[in-house]
Amino acid sequence: MKTLGNDLALIRGKSPLVHNITNFVVMNSTANALLALGASPVMAHAKEEVEEMTGIASSLVINLGTLSPDWVDAMVLAGQKAFSKGIPIVLDPVGVGATRYRADAASRIIEKCHPSVIRGNASEIRCLAKEAGSTKGVDSTIGADEAIEAAKRLANDTGAVVVISGATDYITNGKEVRAVSNGSPIMAKVTGMGCTASAIIGAFAAVNPNLLDAATNAMALMGVVGEYAALTSAGPGSFQVVFTDGLYKITPHDLTETAKISIM
Amino acid sequence: MKTLGNDLALIRGKSPLVHNITNFVVMNSTANALLALGASPVMAHAKEEVEEMTGIASSLVINLGTLSPDWVDAMVLAGQKAFSKGIPIVLDPVGVGATRYRADAASRIIEKCHPSVIRGNASEIRCLAKEAGSTKGVDSTIGADEAIEAAKRLANDTGAVVVISGATDYITNGKEVRAVSNGSPIMAKVTGMGCTASAIIGAFAAVNPNLLDAATNAMALMGVVGEYAALTSAGPGSFQVVFTDGLYKITPHDLTETAKISIM
Amino acid sequence: MKTLGNDLALIRGKSPLVHNITNFVVMNSTANALLALGASPVMAHAKEEVEEMTGIASSLVINLGTLSPDWVDAMVLAGQKAFSKGIPIVLDPVGVGATRYRADAASRIIEKCHPSVIRGNASEIRCLAKEAGSTKGVDSTIGADEAIEAAKRLANDTGAVVVISGATDYITNGKEVRAVSNGSPIMAKVTGMGCTASAIIGAFAAVNPNLLDAATNAMALMGVVGEYAALTSAGPGSFQVVFTDGLYKITPHDLTETAKISIM
Repeated sequence: MKTLGNDLALIRGKSPLVHNITNFVVMNSTANALLALGASPVMAHAKEEVEEMTGIASSLVINLGTLSPDWVDAMVLAGQKAFSKGIPIVLDPVGVGATRYRADAASRIIEKCHPSVIRGNASEIRCLAKEAGSTKGVDSTIGADEAIEAAKRLANDTGAVVVISGATDYITNGKEVRAVSNGSPIMAKVTGMGCTASAIIGAFAAVNPNLLDAATNAMALMGVVGEYAALTSAGPGSFQVVFTDGLYKITPHDLTETAKISIM
Repeated sequence: MKTLGNDLALIRGKSPLVHNITNFVVMNSTANALLALGASPVMAHAKEEVEEMTGIASSLVINLGTLSPDWVDAMVLAGQKAFSKGIPIVLDPVGVGATRYRADAASRIIEKCHPSVIRGNASEIRCLAKEAGSTKGVDSTIGADEAIEAAKRLANDTGAVVVISGATDYITNGKEVRAVSNGSPIMAKVTGMGCTASAIIGAFAAVNPNLLDAATNAMALMGVVGEYAALTSAGPGSFQVVFTDGLYKITPHDLTETAKISIM
Repeated sequence: MKTLGNDLALIRGKSPLVHNITNFVVMNSTANALLALGASPVMAHAKEEVEEMTGIASSLVINLGTLSPDWVDAMVLAGQKAFSKGIPIVLDPVGVGATRYRADAASRIIEKCHPSVIRGNASEIRCLAKEAGSTKGVDSTIGADEAIEAAKRLANDTGAVVVISGATDYITNGKEVRAVSNGSPIMAKVTGMGCTASAIIGAFAAVNPNLLDAATNAMALMGVVGEYAALTSAGPGSFQVVFTDGLYKITPHDLTETAKISIM
């Protein structure tokens, strides 16, 4: 995309405040990814303060990974504030097919907050689109290409840009479908790569109002830095370290040169 | 043990879903350890969903590290589900001697859920066996060998396989005692190594119904990879990185060749 | 300071138990930093046990990063126990200017627990001193030197030693002001460096009753190890790894030689 390098430069120049209500597993790696990229992360989840925190943020990222009732209530409050304020909302429906509680929470957030972007793996996207499917906890049991039609329908039903993460990532607004074919299989062996992708979409969406472009660019960045990290690491432990370094070091030029984005 | 390499291959082949209700300090490193090893971790703690999540899992790991009332209630619900379903339950009674609240929570979980394996340091195991002892927060103040008799009694009283972590690890079903003499002193300088051991026991127990063997094999893997990481790292920060890489790279053959397991 | 190397040796010799009630983002890195340094960290936040845990600790660190009502209640209980027992209390008022809820929680803790040391960035310290100011979530929008007068007033009002983190760190008891000019700009790109500083102040305060010295020494250690890590890492991901290794490896002699502490 023409905006890819420009978005990265904008994130580093503006350092947008990204409000994350996310899960315990990835809070540290997500905060570090956003900081390394050049954004300014904040994590806050108390019902007593989420609206005020969203009020000073440039985007909101809601992640269901380790949800519980008080947290879901806070997600809804923050999401409604973000919607009324007009800042982008990214929803990551982690493990939505695994339990009814997750499915209900995701439905409630979609209905009440109108997320701008929804990013999940193929099982999660098919579950949200009310298609029969299966999941293995928080991991997908099907390929990303098997969820493209579900993603288009979900996009049309909700008005959100929908992203399916996988070996190839797909991004759709219900009409157009983009594909990003960067990345590495080892990313599935590092916890929170999907959650990091959602947070980084939050950073791109904070600087680029074209959310189809913003989500595509974020996935391209994830894939390009993931490729680099896979090549220069010895396993998933060192991958995480090099990946964070890569987010910090990558130039807009190198990002643009290496990204493999296509329109389907 | 004869099953050591085979168990590792089974974990990689089957990628069992391990449901963890664990503490905030180690959620990320635990998830990464299980992923690197080849298992499929899921973290979920809401009372509203733990039974359903345990219902699709192959084993359950309960860790008391940063407990609070809602979490303990969820641990009991998940543990009862796991028991009724017949999947193994690993209990990690972190810091059980430090406060009465931890002791009560551990007793309640043991009574209501009948854990299959209990893993702790020497102070924790002696506390659970109702022996006088002392603890320094979550660290042991005595050597692992000073808790062997307590471990045997705890195993006989609860029906669980009991594991004492230390310079030498001991594993007992109340009758037989195994010793694993791999590992490195630097592992005590990295947070969550014990918690990771408990999670990895969860992965081995998911593929090997002989829980004395499964727990022994898991401790041998921890020790062998810990030795490797100690040799190839410069301190506890790089140790964690190399350890995760090692879980990913170790072959069944190298694991079997390096493990030092003895029957006492 | 003359006590710098000696304090480090004391921490390693005594391994003081530091009780942390801290945020989800930094629990792992904080525990690892304290362990690498030679202290013994414990994380516990349930109202049911915090007083008992503080009762066996040598210092208490309270961090508001991801606060919620139950956690604030526990912080107050633990803080009152620490005060009555006479052990040092370090307060880290993360993001205190961002929401009213944070400001109220910080005021309540200061009033009820009488913290011994308060460490924040310039925006946070000015907010606590009731000065008009601004913040960007949890990041400061002003330089540390712009908060020195506020820090002195806050110290005089509360009786606490006040630390402002920044390119140069300032430490004051309301009368004397110390400056530490070690460190690296990349530390602002790694999440939780401020939180780690607060935890490390907790370790120094546990061994040195002169809290102005203890806080100064802790900030010098942070800065010296940060400089080392910045020189030997490739970005914020590897910085975190090398920083943890550095805490483990630094000698009292090298620390004393490299520290740049001045009295203003």
